[in-house]
Amino acid sequence: MAKVKKQNAFYAQSGGVTAVINASACGVLETAKLYKSKIGKVYAGRNGIIGALTEDLIDTSKESRKDIAALAHTPSGAFGSCRYKLKSLEENRAEYERLIEVFKAHDIGYFFYNGGGDSMDTALKVSQLSESLGYPITCIGIPKTVDNDLPITDCSPGFGSVAKYVAVSIREAGFDVASMAKTSTKVFVMEVMGRHAGWIAAASGLAAENEGDAPHIILFPEVAFNQAAFLQKVDDCVKKFGYCAIVVSEGAKYEDGTFLADAGTTDAFGHKQLGGVAPVVANLVKQELGYKYHWAVADYLQRAARHIASETDVDQAYAVGQAAVEFAMEGKNAVMPTIVRKNTKTYRWEIGEAPLSEVANVEKQLPKNYISKDGMHITDACRDYLLPLIKGEYFPPFKNGLPQYVKLKNEPVAKKLDTTFEIE
Amino acid sequence: MAKVKKQNAFYAQSGGVTAVINASACGVLETAKLYKSKIGKVYAGRNGIIGALTEDLIDTSKESRKDIAALAHTPSGAFGSCRYKLKSLEENRAEYERLIEVFKAHDIGYFFYNGGGDSMDTALKVSQLSESLGYPITCIGIPKTVDNDLPITDCSPGFGSVAKYVAVSIREAGFDVASMAKTSTKVFVMEVMGRHAGWIAAASGLAAENEGDAPHIILFPEVAFNQAAFLQKVDDCVKKFGYCAIVVSEGAKYEDGTFLADAGTTDAFGHKQLGGVAPVVANLVKQELGYKYHWAVADYLQRAARHIASETDVDQAYAVGQAAVEFAMEGKNAVMPTIVRKNTKTYRWEIGEAPLSEVANVEKQLPKNYISKDGMHITDACRDYLLPLIKGEYFPPFKNGLPQYVKLKNEPVAKKLDTTFEIE
Repeated sequence: MAKVKKQNAFYAQSGGVTAVINASACGVLETAKLYKSKIGKVYAGRNGIIGALTEDLIDTSKESRKDIAALAHTPSGAFGSCRYKLKSLEENRAEYERLIEVFKAHDIGYFFYNGGGDSMDTALKVSQLSESLGYPITCIGIPKTVDNDLPITDCSPGFGSVAKYVAVSIREAGFDVASMAKTSTKVFVMEVMGRHAGWIAAASGLAAENEGDAPHIILFPEVAFNQAAFLQKVDDCVKKFGYCAIVVSEGAKYEDGTFLADAGTTDAFGHKQLGGVAPVVANLVKQELGYKYHWAVADYLQRAARHIASETDVDQAYAVGQAAVEFAMEGKNAVMPTIVRKNTKTYRWEIGEAPLSEVANVEKQLPKNYISKDGMHITDACRDYLLPLIKGEYFPPFKNGLPQYVKLKNEPVAKKLDTTFEIE
Repeated sequence: MAKVKKQNAFYAQSGGVTAVINASACGVLETAKLYKSKIGKVYAGRNGIIGALTEDLIDTSKESRKDIAALAHTPSGAFGSCRYKLKSLEENRAEYERLIEVFKAHDIGYFFYNGGGDSMDTALKVSQLSESLGYPITCIGIPKTVDNDLPITDCSPGFGSVAKYVAVSIREAGFDVASMAKTSTKVFVMEVMGRHAGWIAAASGLAAENEGDAPHIILFPEVAFNQAAFLQKVDDCVKKFGYCAIVVSEGAKYEDGTFLADAGTTDAFGHKQLGGVAPVVANLVKQELGYKYHWAVADYLQRAARHIASETDVDQAYAVGQAAVEFAMEGKNAVMPTIVRKNTKTYRWEIGEAPLSEVANVEKQLPKNYISKDGMHITDACRDYLLPLIKGEYFPPFKNGLPQYVKLKNEPVAKKLDTTFEIE
């Protein structure tokens, strides 16, 4: 049964940001405006859940309609996000109680939490505890992660755009290397995100539509690195196509579970150098095969690349934000809107729903049948799954040659509590 | 005086490719078609000048009009490029004589050479030697370099697009880091190209339109790295804005001329690791200030990024290709079309001309008054110069979410010589 009392809502962004998480925020804010009899103000957490814990709330009603609309084409987290995982209820019940104290003080009856698996877990616990404390809060999760590792939902908003970025980038770099390979670089290595799952690396494979197209090799976290087979394939590609374009996931591992990135590069001072699997792979090729190489590490560029966002992804990110508010209005609780694939050939999708209890803390790995037999590329099944997710362009507006992204005013809400809370 | 005899033309791409060098090729090929009474076929060198030396010519007349037109939106070098610098006439006269032998065999009277300073030097020498050998060839240079270091011309085609890419990328990554800085990454380092000149690094500064915008710090090859001043500024930025976004040119140097990139990182096997100034700078920040960091190395992604090319750049690349043919038709020789800036406020440009003798082997450095007093950002004069060059978007066509780039058939021309030539 839907609530009748008008209450405020709280929205927070969590974890690593994406090119489209603000499109979800836009969906939440624009939809909440349609329910003025039930939803008062929408407060946002400054720097995510930390803003709730420290009573540092942002009054989104102070933003113009135009600026809210511009969130749909602005990457990053407009209210700030954070990497702050609440402990379990047993370990730190005080945190959850504090959240509810703040929500109560600001008459917040709706909690929209935009994040990955951990965030869904937090939203679930707040829902449960608030009930037992006699101040029930409607908690709706909004899926977001470039890693595409949330269960139940067909895909996670944020993934489609990074997928498009890596596929476009390796196609372009592949063209470049192909034209120079005769006398210069023969092997190009591009490192992409994905510490635990190879979804992003897999997406680069979409660029290879015909034999010989880049990328020729993809290294996944799911497949133990086989140095001999890898070097053989690099050599074969160079001999056959004149060059070899490689995409490596930051999470690529040896058989024993060690990350390739931790191979142990040290700097001039003998300090262990952190990060960068691409140079490790490139150096290996140079040492063993002698080929001239170049490497790139896209890092944040990939997940922030709103200029080349997938239209499908932007649409879905907006839709899950919109659906979250509608779910709350329908009296639903402790659920998350999902993307349901209705058809692949002519891609159609709709919004579904999943209980937070089934989403929390479950990671969706790349299925085995999405990886080619040699472990170094994607299968047609994978291609069929991925392709619709990068479709369509939704360019931001440009001025003076640059994309125009909005910075909100982010005006604070006056504090109501005389208590403070220290973030550990 | 214009030639009357109909002769074939030879076109070659040289050095590092760009997002728009094929637009120059498109300008050459489409314009040559307008002069059928004077220009027979246009042959292209497979892999640049090597194709001429080895008599490996491509018959561009076998390509469809549609494919030629598609060159305007295709990055890389469609006929292959090479890093192959001809020695001086004194050192290797045989190479120049061989070029003229091949040109003579294929009735080539026009030589269009699309490259940087070295290539202009080669074109000049071919012009001079062909004259003295009694087989005069019209030699026209076509400017191309992402480094923007050619003299006389206001800018070099290829630069505007990489400039746009780096400005867009640091803006996007800056938004990303700003939203996460409270609990996560506080310092972001992006490495860009430019071994000898800081033009590309400077272009990133266009993204900083208001106080606090990324990038906060730019490290140029032209300014000796001042570690203390740098660290102080990083710390100031983090304290003032919550984060610090840094762009570093691959050519950034210490006072003694050593590259920062050569600071001496070694891999697990004790081998010196090549390249990557971004991790060096990031590690320095971590060690001295303790801030969490991320870094990106754009490498080839930046110069291949046709998807975010500058419209101004594409237009100018096409125009210099077109002008090269028109110059030849007007009987000019040993010249290069240039971009002449007519107005900056309301940007207007036109094609000018420079003698190859004045272009060859001269590098245009970033002027002193383009670098801010503290040596770590750009001035308004620099901004005024750069801004028009990144203006306008010229997106390639997309299909299935990916940009559609053309691969030419590149059919060989039958050899006429029974001599061969070994490339060293």
